[in-house]
Amino acid sequence: MPNSSSTNHLLSRQLKLKSLLQSAGLDSLMLNPGPSMVYLTGLNFHLSERPVVVFVSTDAPITIVLPELEQQKIRHLPYDVQAFPYGEDPSQWVKVFRKAIDSAGLNGKRNGVEPRQLRLLEYFLLTEASPQAQFIPAEDIVSRMRMFKDPSELTAMRIAVDIAQRALNATLPQVRIGVTENDLASELTLQLLRAGCDPLLPFSPIVSSGPNSANPHATPTNRKLSPGDLLVIDWGASHDGYLSDITRTFAIGNLSPELEIIGRVVLEANTAARHLVRPGIEIQQVDQAARSVIESAGYGQYFTHRTGHGLGMEGHEEPYIRSGNLTALEPGMTFTIEPGIYLPDKNGVRIEDDVAITDTGCETLTNLPREVRQLV
Amino acid sequence: MPNSSSTNHLLSRQLKLKSLLQSAGLDSLMLNPGPSMVYLTGLNFHLSERPVVVFVSTDAPITIVLPELEQQKIRHLPYDVQAFPYGEDPSQWVKVFRKAIDSAGLNGKRNGVEPRQLRLLEYFLLTEASPQAQFIPAEDIVSRMRMFKDPSELTAMRIAVDIAQRALNATLPQVRIGVTENDLASELTLQLLRAGCDPLLPFSPIVSSGPNSANPHATPTNRKLSPGDLLVIDWGASHDGYLSDITRTFAIGNLSPELEIIGRVVLEANTAARHLVRPGIEIQQVDQAARSVIESAGYGQYFTHRTGHGLGMEGHEEPYIRSGNLTALEPGMTFTIEPGIYLPDKNGVRIEDDVAITDTGCETLTNLPREVRQLV
Repeated sequence: MPNSSSTNHLLSRQLKLKSLLQSAGLDSLMLNPGPSMVYLTGLNFHLSERPVVVFVSTDAPITIVLPELEQQKIRHLPYDVQAFPYGEDPSQWVKVFRKAIDSAGLNGKRNGVEPRQLRLLEYFLLTEASPQAQFIPAEDIVSRMRMFKDPSELTAMRIAVDIAQRALNATLPQVRIGVTENDLASELTLQLLRAGCDPLLPFSPIVSSGPNSANPHATPTNRKLSPGDLLVIDWGASHDGYLSDITRTFAIGNLSPELEIIGRVVLEANTAARHLVRPGIEIQQVDQAARSVIESAGYGQYFTHRTGHGLGMEGHEEPYIRSGNLTALEPGMTFTIEPGIYLPDKNGVRIEDDVAITDTGCETLTNLPREVRQLV
Repeated sequence: MPNSSSTNHLLSRQLKLKSLLQSAGLDSLMLNPGPSMVYLTGLNFHLSERPVVVFVSTDAPITIVLPELEQQKIRHLPYDVQAFPYGEDPSQWVKVFRKAIDSAGLNGKRNGVEPRQLRLLEYFLLTEASPQAQFIPAEDIVSRMRMFKDPSELTAMRIAVDIAQRALNATLPQVRIGVTENDLASELTLQLLRAGCDPLLPFSPIVSSGPNSANPHATPTNRKLSPGDLLVIDWGASHDGYLSDITRTFAIGNLSPELEIIGRVVLEANTAARHLVRPGIEIQQVDQAARSVIESAGYGQYFTHRTGHGLGMEGHEEPYIRSGNLTALEPGMTFTIEPGIYLPDKNGVRIEDDVAITDTGCETLTNLPREVRQLV
């Protein structure tokens, strides 16, 4: 079990959750595989056609419905668990869910769920098994807990940043005219694993060049790098289940004056936002700090996304750094700052850093050079 | 766009789907990101906190609700699409869903959904946006289409098998006493990428040794290989969006007589099942062929899972090779055959091949040696 999910962490998180559930008038939280399940129980299952649901309830021991073949995973847990295993015939699953819900006393009760994680597969089984139960969106309860990182979580994130940065530095010597986006993405993936990333990458690196860089979520293609291109690389590593997520933009040969300008504007927007963040600042002010730089330069309509997102066990989590988010920054929050300008059919720039709010200000976890460096 | 999703493929799949929806009395299928969306539309989105839903309806053009920043992805589609983009404020999303549903004329209609793919996030938005609409599980319609592979899909799967097999052969020289499961998993991942696997692995390789091999879904650990261990490696590659999924078991040094026996029994079970498969055979007979070998040897209770699962764009899909599945095999079906014996606290064996049903019999796509080879 990773350090950030030690027995003490798990037990204190479970206690805290129970108290938050009671305050919210809920009798349980029903979790399916994903980061919140790992965070609260240490249990790591794949999301598959075989449902796995854990009930953390205020009154009963932790209860789990799972496939028989997964029972090994719950043999040595540091807390009590009631297990309801099922076999390979899906027509029998609802009966097992019913037994589990009845045993935990949750039929007719108010049960929290995470709409972003729970699928209709599990929801239909739960509602059929407990027609009297209520299922209430309660994503905020766990996401607020997970939003504040403790020192062991911050350590894991610093290591994830270090792995990602070393991997990029090992990849940059391969950048040259004629190499394809796919080639660079494969090389970066290799270097991430070599640098010590967990075997399953948190996300597939984005390597986009020329007009492709105008798509913020581009998939690498066989396009070859050409003189005058911008090259956007958006990549991350995971360590101990915690992620990094970084973007740098490079120049291939000499850029047109317009591309030079958008590179400088985005760097200025990134800097403005990073210099603002500290405890007490409203999140929407951070978005505004980056956005106003880009708007003043006349490119507001080409900054098509929020300024950043929370980062931790997931690539995107709370807090979201967007207009309208009135939450005040607090120590322990970790998120990205990633303004961009995307000129359709031309080129795009994004510069993304990972930051952690400290007691008095902000630690920028990422420290690779931020300016649009000319590589070729 | 990969060859297996060429324009002709997409248009003919959309036509076929519409006719199947009409036969099933449905007015649309509502898809969120995942293999069915790729299969039917060629659109590849990440599942994230920003919902993306595509409506394929019998009467209206293809309709998509998506984040504004993803609009680049739908600019050059080879079919008509009505797009409803939304911004970064989640409180506004339901209005955009309502506009999309009204425009496609689907409020008050019978809409199919895939419970294994659709989350409560999308479901709650859809139900709030169209309180008169019905949402009906319709997973079978697409999964039955996807179950039958055409020649271009089979070609992609053969390449995915070849990549995986070459990667394993390049990894085996690293197997020695004292190396850890994690070391081998990292090396295998590197070799998969080097052999040409798509950048995001279809799943993280399972490398489990000694007592860990008794857990069919083990996660690699820092346990070092020791004499007398069984070593189970379960890995796969993806090519052009299509997967391979293979397991081989190896002996580290000399095995105890019992471990030698379970290795031979599982090989015999694998062979019995593979030799049976051909068009017309009931799927449960394939499961029974493998299971009866293991039961006759006295290990029935330690074969804790079905004999296999469909394979294609997903690691687990239709058809599931299990007791009670009365479907008859037909040409074009592709699936795994992977019997195993797992002795708790001792060791486990699994031998997994990928097969494709042909007009007259079966092609085993995988051809690495199947017996439990002694490596050290």
